[in-house]
Amino acid sequence: MEGGKTARIVLDRDFKIGDIDPRIYGGFLEHMGRAIYTGIYEPGHPTADEQGFRQDVLDLVRELGVPIVRYPGGNFVSGYNWEDGVGPKDQRPRRLDLAWRSLETNEVGTNEFADWTLKANSQMMLAVNLGTRGIDAARNLVEYCNHPGGSYWSDKRREHGYPDPHNVRVWCLGNEMDGHWQIGFKTAVEYGRLAAQAGMAMKLVDPSIELVACGSSSISMPTFGEWEATVLDLAYHHVDYISLHTYYGKGDLDTPSYLARSLGMDEFIEAVVSICDYVRSKKKLRKRIHLSFDEWNVWYHSREEDRRIMEQHAWQVAPPLAEERYTLEDALLAGCMLISLLKHADRVKIACVAQLVNVIAPIMTVPGGPAWKQTIYYPFMHASRYGRGTALLMQVDSPQYADPQYDAVPYLEAVATYDEEHEEVSIFAVNRSQEDPLYLEGDLRCFTGYGVQEHLVLSHADPHATNSAEQPHNVRPGRVEGSQVREGRLEAELPPLSWNVIRLSSRRSS
Amino acid sequence: MEGGKTARIVLDRDFKIGDIDPRIYGGFLEHMGRAIYTGIYEPGHPTADEQGFRQDVLDLVRELGVPIVRYPGGNFVSGYNWEDGVGPKDQRPRRLDLAWRSLETNEVGTNEFADWTLKANSQMMLAVNLGTRGIDAARNLVEYCNHPGGSYWSDKRREHGYPDPHNVRVWCLGNEMDGHWQIGFKTAVEYGRLAAQAGMAMKLVDPSIELVACGSSSISMPTFGEWEATVLDLAYHHVDYISLHTYYGKGDLDTPSYLARSLGMDEFIEAVVSICDYVRSKKKLRKRIHLSFDEWNVWYHSREEDRRIMEQHAWQVAPPLAEERYTLEDALLAGCMLISLLKHADRVKIACVAQLVNVIAPIMTVPGGPAWKQTIYYPFMHASRYGRGTALLMQVDSPQYADPQYDAVPYLEAVATYDEEHEEVSIFAVNRSQEDPLYLEGDLRCFTGYGVQEHLVLSHADPHATNSAEQPHNVRPGRVEGSQVREGRLEAELPPLSWNVIRLSSRRSS
Amino acid sequence: MEGGKTARIVLDRDFKIGDIDPRIYGGFLEHMGRAIYTGIYEPGHPTADEQGFRQDVLDLVRELGVPIVRYPGGNFVSGYNWEDGVGPKDQRPRRLDLAWRSLETNEVGTNEFADWTLKANSQMMLAVNLGTRGIDAARNLVEYCNHPGGSYWSDKRREHGYPDPHNVRVWCLGNEMDGHWQIGFKTAVEYGRLAAQAGMAMKLVDPSIELVACGSSSISMPTFGEWEATVLDLAYHHVDYISLHTYYGKGDLDTPSYLARSLGMDEFIEAVVSICDYVRSKKKLRKRIHLSFDEWNVWYHSREEDRRIMEQHAWQVAPPLAEERYTLEDALLAGCMLISLLKHADRVKIACVAQLVNVIAPIMTVPGGPAWKQTIYYPFMHASRYGRGTALLMQVDSPQYADPQYDAVPYLEAVATYDEEHEEVSIFAVNRSQEDPLYLEGDLRCFTGYGVQEHLVLSHADPHATNSAEQPHNVRPGRVEGSQVREGRLEAELPPLSWNVIRLSSRRSS
Repeated sequence: MEGGKTARIVLDRDFKIGDIDPRIYGGFLEHMGRAIYTGIYEPGHPTADEQGFRQDVLDLVRELGVPIVRYPGGNFVSGYNWEDGVGPKDQRPRRLDLAWRSLETNEVGTNEFADWTLKANSQMMLAVNLGTRGIDAARNLVEYCNHPGGSYWSDKRREHGYPDPHNVRVWCLGNEMDGHWQIGFKTAVEYGRLAAQAGMAMKLVDPSIELVACGSSSISMPTFGEWEATVLDLAYHHVDYISLHTYYGKGDLDTPSYLARSLGMDEFIEAVVSICDYVRSKKKLRKRIHLSFDEWNVWYHSREEDRRIMEQHAWQVAPPLAEERYTLEDALLAGCMLISLLKHADRVKIACVAQLVNVIAPIMTVPGGPAWKQTIYYPFMHASRYGRGTALLMQVDSPQYADPQYDAVPYLEAVATYDEEHEEVSIFAVNRSQEDPLYLEGDLRCFTGYGVQEHLVLSHADPHATNSAEQPHNVRPGRVEGSQVREGRLEAELPPLSWNVIRLSSRRSS
Repeated sequence: MEGGKTARIVLDRDFKIGDIDPRIYGGFLEHMGRAIYTGIYEPGHPTADEQGFRQDVLDLVRELGVPIVRYPGGNFVSGYNWEDGVGPKDQRPRRLDLAWRSLETNEVGTNEFADWTLKANSQMMLAVNLGTRGIDAARNLVEYCNHPGGSYWSDKRREHGYPDPHNVRVWCLGNEMDGHWQIGFKTAVEYGRLAAQAGMAMKLVDPSIELVACGSSSISMPTFGEWEATVLDLAYHHVDYISLHTYYGKGDLDTPSYLARSLGMDEFIEAVVSICDYVRSKKKLRKRIHLSFDEWNVWYHSREEDRRIMEQHAWQVAPPLAEERYTLEDALLAGCMLISLLKHADRVKIACVAQLVNVIAPIMTVPGGPAWKQTIYYPFMHASRYGRGTALLMQVDSPQYADPQYDAVPYLEAVATYDEEHEEVSIFAVNRSQEDPLYLEGDLRCFTGYGVQEHLVLSHADPHATNSAEQPHNVRPGRVEGSQVREGRLEAELPPLSWNVIRLSSRRSS
Repeated sequence: MEGGKTARIVLDRDFKIGDIDPRIYGGFLEHMGRAIYTGIYEPGHPTADEQGFRQDVLDLVRELGVPIVRYPGGNFVSGYNWEDGVGPKDQRPRRLDLAWRSLETNEVGTNEFADWTLKANSQMMLAVNLGTRGIDAARNLVEYCNHPGGSYWSDKRREHGYPDPHNVRVWCLGNEMDGHWQIGFKTAVEYGRLAAQAGMAMKLVDPSIELVACGSSSISMPTFGEWEATVLDLAYHHVDYISLHTYYGKGDLDTPSYLARSLGMDEFIEAVVSICDYVRSKKKLRKRIHLSFDEWNVWYHSREEDRRIMEQHAWQVAPPLAEERYTLEDALLAGCMLISLLKHADRVKIACVAQLVNVIAPIMTVPGGPAWKQTIYYPFMHASRYGRGTALLMQVDSPQYADPQYDAVPYLEAVATYDEEHEEVSIFAVNRSQEDPLYLEGDLRCFTGYGVQEHLVLSHADPHATNSAEQPHNVRPGRVEGSQVREGRLEAELPPLSWNVIRLSSRRSS
């Protein structure tokens, strides 16, 4: 054990954070860029099914494991008339999408997306437009989607070819309504009141639905905190979740400082939890508001190009917006963000990687050509596949480094999950060090008899390495050997700048 | 005069409360339960006319004497599109009524109801939807109803078969907009502003209309008082009335405490009067705001069943909601409430018993079968028939009883009205005692030559006695003899737990 | 030089107020009275073109020189659905115009008006309805007018026969939204928020547009000042101009006091400038808000008649509303108002005489008959024709008179403009004295070689003299001789109660 540092962790099956809601592995598909058109939907593509959905994309989405997908926005939804997207396709209007300065053909709408989510083994998380519209359009959409039939809008759905209701459970009350870029942007009082009114009417249509209120668009909004407190004060009874959004960019940061950004995600989550519980205690209520981290990712490579397209090439159908090309280090930060979500599994019940296809996305497509996986695909897939069950309250003792923003950044970012049914424990770990491997020593306590089943690593000699349509496998995970459990102690080596999944199982002894 | 108590009253034709506005005998018909469908409207019923209106019900309504009927809600109106209810019936949409979790077929709408009110010798008091809609839908409805023709909406009415305007005089600006159960519920500032804006536009269409602003949904609302003051502060110039709503329930109360509840109605009215006059003096205006007590009744028998139907049997057409079965004691409390309205005839210009048919109603129907009268039918009919002209400022000196809520409750609840044209005086009186008769001594002062024409009594050995379709006459009023005027003094005996109408006339001497 | 007073002015080409935006010579045409119907539009009129536009009116408008015309309101717009006025004329609805209690046939709408403005050598300044409507209708109208095609609303325009966009540059965010007479009247916070939201969405459709926020309806509104500050605080980023409206009436004033009213216009403009700059400095911004004085004129002759028509003869098509018959003294006050606009050319970038035809207008028409010019036509035409280029910071030393409202009113109201390209200077001057001529001495400084090209005077023996269809030339301008430049000093005589244009040019020496 030379040339590296040692980090120690303790796992105990009796010390738990909470049950992991599978919906933290949710995704997001907005009518933006090529997410829908030439993303999930491309009639004429060699793999397209009879509805025009690309099977190659669907295969990747199913492999990724995305139990819920937020739709149709995002900023897009604040100017969207949902009625434009249902009924005979040849009668659907072509609209200016003011949010992304694009042209929306409305070829894909709520019903098509419902079919797609079924094919993707997923479910819909629908947003209503609280920018240009209000209570009425919202209650009508819930009726259209969830009412069995016999009423105006539910019968319209049936006429449109969908005899069975879509039964959408989770609904977003608008999107980022505090943002000055949002069509119909609102003050906290305006939004809190409208969220209460619309939410109340939506739940009268279907009392079984769950509602997500908009939190601040990011922790850096000048109204952060006060926004959440005011909105919850006005709409507490009517909502179930409050949303959080975060995109990290690299700017002038070096790799260690960049990878440290996920500490801000922990702080963000904990700040919002404290606001929810403050309002709860002030109102003397038992009901808790949970968190929906429904936009999170890394986004900075394409910003300039996005601006150029919107300013100089406005009003295209499906312009190539936000087509990030993710590097290894981006994947590591995404991995840290996944770990942050798991560390707050007691309160974060929904999270959506933003987005799923082409637009700041793990899955990319070439129109008429193949679909391929970005670097960030892998941490997400690992977490979704192996990070089920219970999040464990892991003790971590890691060496640290200094950073201009955070005094002490641990080299090791890690969390463990425990799948009691299958007797499996997964340790997700990032080594933030760019020079040294990190030696991991784990005290497994009462997980007697557990051994290492597999140690997966995503790493690369070049932290800026990316995948592409031509080189889709440049960055991809591999198995490493040598990790083991000896006398109840886990021993493993995490390479420099690496994402690791160490899967322990009672079925194998080390 | 043994085994009873004595109460003394003084009547003087020169001491008046004010002229009685006949509209205090108004009713209310909401699209709720079986009020409309299988209530006033049942095509195929043996008594149905060519429009489907039950003649047996119309007969009872005409007998009851209801000069104005509020319509179409109530909570219903806050989700109602009035356009759904006009035009060809086969094109009217079936809507989810979120307020009562029922299905609205829209077979009856504004025009049909206009016809019905004509047949009922009544007039419409229409409510506009300020829950999901605003200024525009409101002004259009006024144009549709009241504009002679030549404009878009008035020509629509003509196309729909109504060449003459309906000339609706009184309009409600929404319904119970402070209630958390109300679709689009509002703060006082939000509502006051919207009421001013919508009211202003409605009066531009027809300056002859009168507008009712929503007061608090009940005196027990946490915002009561402040709501009225704020709303009037914002909308004083645009409105003419403010609404009051009260429903009394029995809960664990014994009969005397239950009958004492009407003292709260006096207090409620006087509180609202004081708020109106406070805003008036603050604004230094001459115009007075009057009161529209547009929902009042007893409601408690059906509450559990109502909840069960809405939760477990939602989305029916015309479910049997709020089908109270009224007892004798309910009728006595309703009588006390009528007396309270008359005692405030100077400020209460409109009142609506809620409701008229099937739903918390004096008139009940059996689908395909008969219509019958509840116990509360009779006090209302008596008051409406005999309580016209001027309300007299009667001096009452009654024995009292203690009550947990009110220190001293008079056994005698009474008011007198004077019809100068026909030279008739009516005394409406309830004896709240369940054991003893009450001996009434009246000093008639300048009503020289008046004698007892008739003494009507509603009473029953069992205070919980009710009527039913099978026993429609179990509780009904009768005439009692023995009441007389001697040397200018009225002598009458009010049986225990009884409603009394003592009609004096100059045409008969005692 | 006896029997008169002397005023001295100094002109220097290096002391400038600012460039004159030609749009200060804008007009206003509202769907009100006979402005549109039998005003600019009268199919069947002998001079009507194939679209029904009167050529005689167009000739006068072109002669007047009106580079921009505000449309379609005014109060009218706050109840207007712009969609009513486009598409096949036989399908356009007849609407109640609640603002003017008239009937709107919608024969003329946005597209027809676009054609008219082209024929009038002008451009449109369109107002969106923020009374009964909001963000959505506003963004759609911008799309309809300005988007080239390929989207729902722009394709509608093409369907309606207009393949090219109208490219409307200046848009009014509603009209006089603080006025209690305005449909959907708003508080400053309500309006400021809506202006920001609607303006933001409109600029997303077309970033090249400029937006005018409503200022106070007049300086006499109780909320004046606070309204502007609040609205700008909320909408500063989204708007480019703030509006001012002023109509002067004579009431009991004598002629000198009446003519002094324009001093209030100076004060009004300077007050609004100070508010704009206060908000700018508070917000630490570089962007300046400019002024759109988009309703100004004299209005008092017809007020009683207007009231009578609206109350007793409501719901006519094109009733003869606001048909002022302007006197000479009205023309002088209008001239003073034009001078006030020019004196503030650095901040007033748009101004609209209200209105253009028939309604408080310089141009009048007889249905089926001639069009003729009111007295106020001439000062406007002179200013528009000769008042281009740069407004000069003229030093004025004038004798003064006392007035109950203003301590010292100068007899001379004057401003000078400099057209560098054509080497012309125009002095616009009103002599407010009703008894005496005013001798004008001008120090021309560096305008060496300039001489008097023309001195135009509008005057009349009777200050109450008017024009009419029968006597269209009773009051009209003439040339006076004798004005001259001697040794760099201008000498001219301004008759009592006169409007003067003294045109200096380098091409002629005196």
